Amino acid sequence: MVIQLNDIQNFESRYRAKLINSLSGFRQVSLIGTQSKLGIANLAIFNSLIHLSANPPLWGLVFRPDTVQRDTLDNILETGVYSINYVSSNYFQQAHQTSAKYDSNISEFEAVGFKTTYDSDFLAPFVEEATVKIAMKLEQVIPIELNGTKLLIGSIQRINLKESMLKKDGFVALNEEQIIASSGLDAYYKTELLGRLNYAQPNIKVSFLEI
Amino acid sequence: MVIQLNDIQNFESRYRAKLINSLSGFRQVSLIGTQSKLGIANLAIFNSLIHLSANPPLWGLVFRPDTVQRDTLDNILETGVYSINYVSSNYFQQAHQTSAKYDSNISEFEAVGFKTTYDSDFLAPFVEEATVKIAMKLEQVIPIELNGTKLLIGSIQRINLKESMLKKDGFVALNEEQIIASSGLDAYYKTELLGRLNYAQPNIKVSFLEI
Repeated sequence: MVIQLNDIQNFESRYRAKLINSLSGFRQVSLIGTQSKLGIANLAIFNSLIHLSANPPLWGLVFRPDTVQRDTLDNILETGVYSINYVSSNYFQQAHQTSAKYDSNISEFEAVGFKTTYDSDFLAPFVEEATVKIAMKLEQVIPIELNGTKLLIGSIQRINLKESMLKKDGFVALNEEQIIASSGLDAYYKTELLGRLNYAQPNIKVSFLEI
Repeated sequence: MVIQLNDIQNFESRYRAKLINSLSGFRQVSLIGTQSKLGIANLAIFNSLIHLSANPPLWGLVFRPDTVQRDTLDNILETGVYSINYVSSNYFQQAHQTSAKYDSNISEFEAVGFKTTYDSDFLAPFVEEATVKIAMKLEQVIPIELNGTKLLIGSIQRINLKESMLKKDGFVALNEEQIIASSGLDAYYKTELLGRLNYAQPNIKVSFLEI
């Protein structure tokens, strides 16, 4: 079936949001941990994490205007730091529940049943249950004027992960720990590896990489 | 195990690239179809698609400097249009093969064995075998000076998908057609739905959405 731009513009707004967001495909579920200036631990689910470069190690996060994720942005701008946490499929319902609009004086960690854990030299809280915990430092916020969103760029400061996931060539096998993926605003997935493939070259048949 | 920023900076560059890229998690596999000014159809694999907004329907793509994806960027800047194509798990090896550095006068469609198909009013080629085909128009390119990457923003002009994937509330069930996800530069996955969840509200137990 064909859906034209004109159809998209005329759809009811929640229908359109679900369509365009889910159509953009599978993505990583990130739980972003921050601390407010009043010392309250905040946790929010994001599916807009993007890899920007490995050297320097920079990742982006997209913030839409006027969403519950606003607390997260305010806290990052105030403290300069945040944590990125990946959880296994056992926790997908708790992860989703962090998207509820809790008052700013309530910690989503407590509200949904995750424990906080801290590094001694880093202000933002981590999710103790997370299989992967990453300490991030704010580098830049780029406003996208076309639609009022913001691209927040941060640098990786420290990575904490289960050693067995890290392969000899640097690859991190998130699938081995059933780390969750999502699509749209409400669908959660586990993944099954089809294979890793060797570096592609013209006129050489694709082959599987075994590591 | 803990990996510090200092370790990351000292890793061998390909090890570091695989680590930081794969750690950024699961993402959608997009085959981007473009046409060069000489009329040659180009196809390249991307895993940097991001949802920016539903109204207007805007998505981003990240371009790193000096990669094989440069042809794609040049073609989009010259013609103003591109296609986004999603394929099923049957095609993951062909999709990966589009990342090989073919000469600019060779069409990756032919080289890897995908057929082109065209809409009469749209210059960029689509992948005939793709389950989802999306016509995109260039809106803006935002340079990211921190690391020399570019964020290309495009608007959705037309969506062509299998009708059974589109649910009553607008959700597109990519998993039903085994659309592929990836992580890092070489790992491909199929997904298994854990569930769709209702809109989260404070103090109300998470519940499954049945559509």
